[in-house]
Amino acid sequence: MNIPQSSFKRVVIIGGGFAGIALAKKLSRQEFQVVLMDKNNYHTFQPLLYQVSTGGLEPDSIAYPIRKVLQGYPNFYFRLTEVTKIDTDKNLVHTTIGELKFDFLIVATGTKTNYFGNESIAKNSMAMKTIPQSLNLRSLILENFEQALLTDDLHEREALMNFVIVGGGPTGVELAGALAEIKKGILPKDYPDLDTRRAQINLVQGADRLLPAMSDIASKKAEDFLEKLGVHVWKNIRVTGYNGKVATTNQDTVFETATLIWAAGVQAIKIDGLDKAEFLSKSKRLLVNEFNQVNGFDHIFAIGDVAEMVSDDYPMGHPMMAQPAIQQGEKLGENLIRLQKGKSLQPFSYRDKGSMATIGRNKAVADLPNFKFQGVFAWFVWMFVHLYFLIGFRNRLVVFINWVYNYVKFDREARLIIRPFKKTYS
Amino acid sequence: MNIPQSSFKRVVIIGGGFAGIALAKKLSRQEFQVVLMDKNNYHTFQPLLYQVSTGGLEPDSIAYPIRKVLQGYPNFYFRLTEVTKIDTDKNLVHTTIGELKFDFLIVATGTKTNYFGNESIAKNSMAMKTIPQSLNLRSLILENFEQALLTDDLHEREALMNFVIVGGGPTGVELAGALAEIKKGILPKDYPDLDTRRAQINLVQGADRLLPAMSDIASKKAEDFLEKLGVHVWKNIRVTGYNGKVATTNQDTVFETATLIWAAGVQAIKIDGLDKAEFLSKSKRLLVNEFNQVNGFDHIFAIGDVAEMVSDDYPMGHPMMAQPAIQQGEKLGENLIRLQKGKSLQPFSYRDKGSMATIGRNKAVADLPNFKFQGVFAWFVWMFVHLYFLIGFRNRLVVFINWVYNYVKFDREARLIIRPFKKTYS
Repeated sequence: MNIPQSSFKRVVIIGGGFAGIALAKKLSRQEFQVVLMDKNNYHTFQPLLYQVSTGGLEPDSIAYPIRKVLQGYPNFYFRLTEVTKIDTDKNLVHTTIGELKFDFLIVATGTKTNYFGNESIAKNSMAMKTIPQSLNLRSLILENFEQALLTDDLHEREALMNFVIVGGGPTGVELAGALAEIKKGILPKDYPDLDTRRAQINLVQGADRLLPAMSDIASKKAEDFLEKLGVHVWKNIRVTGYNGKVATTNQDTVFETATLIWAAGVQAIKIDGLDKAEFLSKSKRLLVNEFNQVNGFDHIFAIGDVAEMVSDDYPMGHPMMAQPAIQQGEKLGENLIRLQKGKSLQPFSYRDKGSMATIGRNKAVADLPNFKFQGVFAWFVWMFVHLYFLIGFRNRLVVFINWVYNYVKFDREARLIIRPFKKTYS
Repeated sequence: MNIPQSSFKRVVIIGGGFAGIALAKKLSRQEFQVVLMDKNNYHTFQPLLYQVSTGGLEPDSIAYPIRKVLQGYPNFYFRLTEVTKIDTDKNLVHTTIGELKFDFLIVATGTKTNYFGNESIAKNSMAMKTIPQSLNLRSLILENFEQALLTDDLHEREALMNFVIVGGGPTGVELAGALAEIKKGILPKDYPDLDTRRAQINLVQGADRLLPAMSDIASKKAEDFLEKLGVHVWKNIRVTGYNGKVATTNQDTVFETATLIWAAGVQAIKIDGLDKAEFLSKSKRLLVNEFNQVNGFDHIFAIGDVAEMVSDDYPMGHPMMAQPAIQQGEKLGENLIRLQKGKSLQPFSYRDKGSMATIGRNKAVADLPNFKFQGVFAWFVWMFVHLYFLIGFRNRLVVFINWVYNYVKFDREARLIIRPFKKTYS
């Protein structure tokens, strides 16, 4: 694929997410040739996708050109491609644009939506893991209200205004809160000829509490905040099927809805050649040791959500969030430099900086290592943490301005159907 | 289509462009029932589409939700639909979501690209009249450079980096200038492994000067500015065909290019029922009298680019720009209110506020009625005029910040392939 030969060892990084970018930055100006591959030419700031879906942010504000990140790094190459196979015998990466030999390979491919084999849900539900998916959801939400205006069938109209979010993790909780704010602040003004009080937001959680990865108090408060916003929170109930009109559950409850958003699970993105059982954990992530080396290799690594590093503190691997990904990317960068200098590898140790979720326009829950708090102050902290981790000064500025504007005006002006999704309900 | 009966007369406006929105605003809080129809749920600020195509602005910043414009106007209805036919006998608008009776009908449908019947160009070229089209062009430009990296065939690589813009009006001139800035400021940094000096920007104009609607000095200066930026300006030459690889002309010159952008003509969007010869001008716009009434009707009007009002000063109708559209929309609003009050109609008279085009990062040409100027000051004026006419405070702020950022940093960060266009060249 037209990468020149070099006297430096070649590091191939697959994936420009949090982990891949953190690693690339560490390797700048080191004695490596680095080739970063991604199927998109941009990095996606996934934690804010729900704001794109709900018209609060412009999609371009949470995307950042990968080439811009690498600008000025000598011996860096970016390739827009999809990896089709790893040949671990010949140290070759096969891609849609040709093959490439590597000295070190780093798999940082992240996760995709997991439907647990349920085809009806996979086919008819909406996901929110990528920017195009989030834009499709934005279009569908707006199209539903336009369509609700046109029908005299009350049943159909309510199904068009009924949103069912499956999964009570941060994505589901944050999306539910944002939809509730839209129902309150925007729908009555945008659709004076529609009884938008009938719009419903249902959040369906299989476990017995929301945000199961956070503290009990965070779960409890998040549920309180959501219910005050008018969200119907369902616990201990699982959605078992969805035909595009009716969602069935493992109980008697059914939901008639034109929009089922599936945020109930993710799975590691497998790569051909690294998909044998010996490489995979129970949850199908790539098993890595404390140096992020994939089981059985000393020059193939996995970092971020795709990697599962089992330890006493984290028997199921680290949480699938930005922080472990960034820290693993940085640590691996340091380790590769150590290798290069003939030093031994240092084990990764995760420094938990805490986790947060925001609910509605000015509430959040935060679990810091030594301090748990909820409410308006947590929301301030949430905002500044997210601005800090966004890549790019322009993105930060534009996101900040949108947040101030949306807050002051109770508004979300990116409610645009730029590309219709055109799922017909009736 | 579920519009309630009202004791007020019903005004149906087709199209939420500059003309339709200006009219709607005038009719707020008047004794009319107003139904605005558009096939998009947003207003597009067309003069800045070229900045979306070239990564300078986010698409959502130049779009504005039509429902937000109409918020708080009593007796206003918006419908997202396409009009399929006008029944002038029964005063009915037929649409994809049903039919609607009107008392007054206003056609404000604007224009679309005119390929003058050339099918090879229509099929293989890129247009830039809508936001999705502009995003497709943005994707294609970036995909071309990614693809240019992969080939060893110098011929193919040059065709991928060769941009041919057909049409020397403001759109062509502004796009050529923006591409030239990208070539200079961004490509060398983004593609260090590509000889981007070989990228070419060709601007092909059929007439003997650029910007034929502007003054001679503006044309001359625009050409100077473009040539200083490295744009190849071709005059007195017409592109006659394009098979996706080679563009032929009415002379010996041919262009080998993966990207032909067609900005050489527009035509009024016809509506079934108002497409008889008696309604149309030579250039197929709807002929209107001085009150914007369509030939032969007193209750059917056309405003904006779709309308041709012939006068001594404007024997070919008014220029197809925002200003005449806005002024016609406002005047028609006043006239409808006069009709409602039993007064007679007042004729439209166009107040020419001048025209401008910008070239590159800090130059523009401006023809004001009594003052023509070019250069950096004209560019300042251009910026503030465009900010002024953008709808929405948030859009203005975000566009302004992007401009300051792009100017200071010589950058354009929205160089994102969010939805691949995937035109293959080789």
